[in-house]
Amino acid sequence: MDIKSIQKQLADFANERDWDQFHNPKNLAMALSVEASELVEIFQWLTPKQAESIMSTDENEHVKEEMADIMIYLIRMADKLNIDLERAVTDKIVKNGKKYPAKS
Amino acid sequence: MDIKSIQKQLADFANERDWDQFHNPKNLAMALSVEASELVEIFQWLTPKQAESIMSTDENEHVKEEMADIMIYLIRMADKLNIDLERAVTDKIVKNGKKYPAKS
Amino acid sequence: MDIKSIQKQLADFANERDWDQFHNPKNLAMALSVEASELVEIFQWLTPKQAESIMSTDENEHVKEEMADIMIYLIRMADKLNIDLERAVTDKIVKNGKKYPAKS
Amino acid sequence: MDIKSIQKQLADFANERDWDQFHNPKNLAMALSVEASELVEIFQWLTPKQAESIMSTDENEHVKEEMADIMIYLIRMADKLNIDLERAVTDKIVKNGKKYPAKS
Repeated sequence: MDIKSIQKQLADFANERDWDQFHNPKNLAMALSVEASELVEIFQWLTPKQAESIMSTDENEHVKEEMADIMIYLIRMADKLNIDLERAVTDKIVKNGKKYPAKS
Repeated sequence: MDIKSIQKQLADFANERDWDQFHNPKNLAMALSVEASELVEIFQWLTPKQAESIMSTDENEHVKEEMADIMIYLIRMADKLNIDLERAVTDKIVKNGKKYPAKS
Repeated sequence: MDIKSIQKQLADFANERDWDQFHNPKNLAMALSVEASELVEIFQWLTPKQAESIMSTDENEHVKEEMADIMIYLIRMADKLNIDLERAVTDKIVKNGKKYPAKS
Repeated sequence: MDIKSIQKQLADFANERDWDQFHNPKNLAMALSVEASELVEIFQWLTPKQAESIMSTDENEHVKEEMADIMIYLIRMADKLNIDLERAVTDKIVKNGKKYPAKS
């Protein structure tokens, strides 16, 4: 995924709509969490089994869109805060590996 | 960002710890939303101005780690649901462009 | 507020709709968090000042309804888990008082 | 539950700590949603069955405290916005009854 290119698109998108004024990291974190809850809402009354077959239901586009919204706010926020998302992910996986050693 | 490669790492990570049993999409959506709230928590009592300079404070690593956690669950969930995240993002940006036309 | 009487109403409401099967504490906690995000959504792009005058806007009924939804799930969950909400609140205020001593 | 009396206690608590400045409705909604996620976190990897017996585990005090935190922010926010919580709940139950008619 070309994060830089998506960040450029999202910055242009915000600028063309005068939305940049709203995109401080506090508001972006809130918006991200609201989108995460919209994803949760799709699954809230389902059994784990039903949840697993969500992509064979009418909700499949909805799931994709909510996941895209989360990604969009995450990428936008990383741009605003000058965070290298890929590196942050790689570093976190290493840290998790130390915190939770694999069973041998 | 090489999503496929990260997905492989995360799948191996889960398998080595017998965590795959917990990673149904309902639980992953919940976990993602919990991480999103941990990001929100960093900003909750800050003014918008203070939020903007968060990366010059002691919280900078914390912000990176919470954003990484959100990305990790999002990438893992996309793997489980067979969703092409990059495409989902691109499609959503197009859709948003139609929903919110730019000012001319 | 007569919690017991509201719990009775909510239990009847769920029974009459065969919803009791969905109301395990995991699902109720999810539903509660989704409602909390719907409340957050109302405020996400507002300045703190705009947020303070929300009740003089068209959103005033919306705010009330989202807060009611949160309370409803909280009261329902307390019923399911046999938790005395009033006592839990009183105990937590005492605990907070010890954790955060008042300035003298 | 005597909401008015709890509101008085919470207002005093905030005043004694100079916290009133942070308690605008936007911040309180965020804080409430963060507490809701802390409640969700307790249940995120549990099966529905395990969730149902949470009060017979070591997590029972934790559940009570998270639910109390949610209630505390809800009651505080209602005070700040001059909302009658009990009435909001009663009105919402009536509205839900119309939206979701009982099976006959």
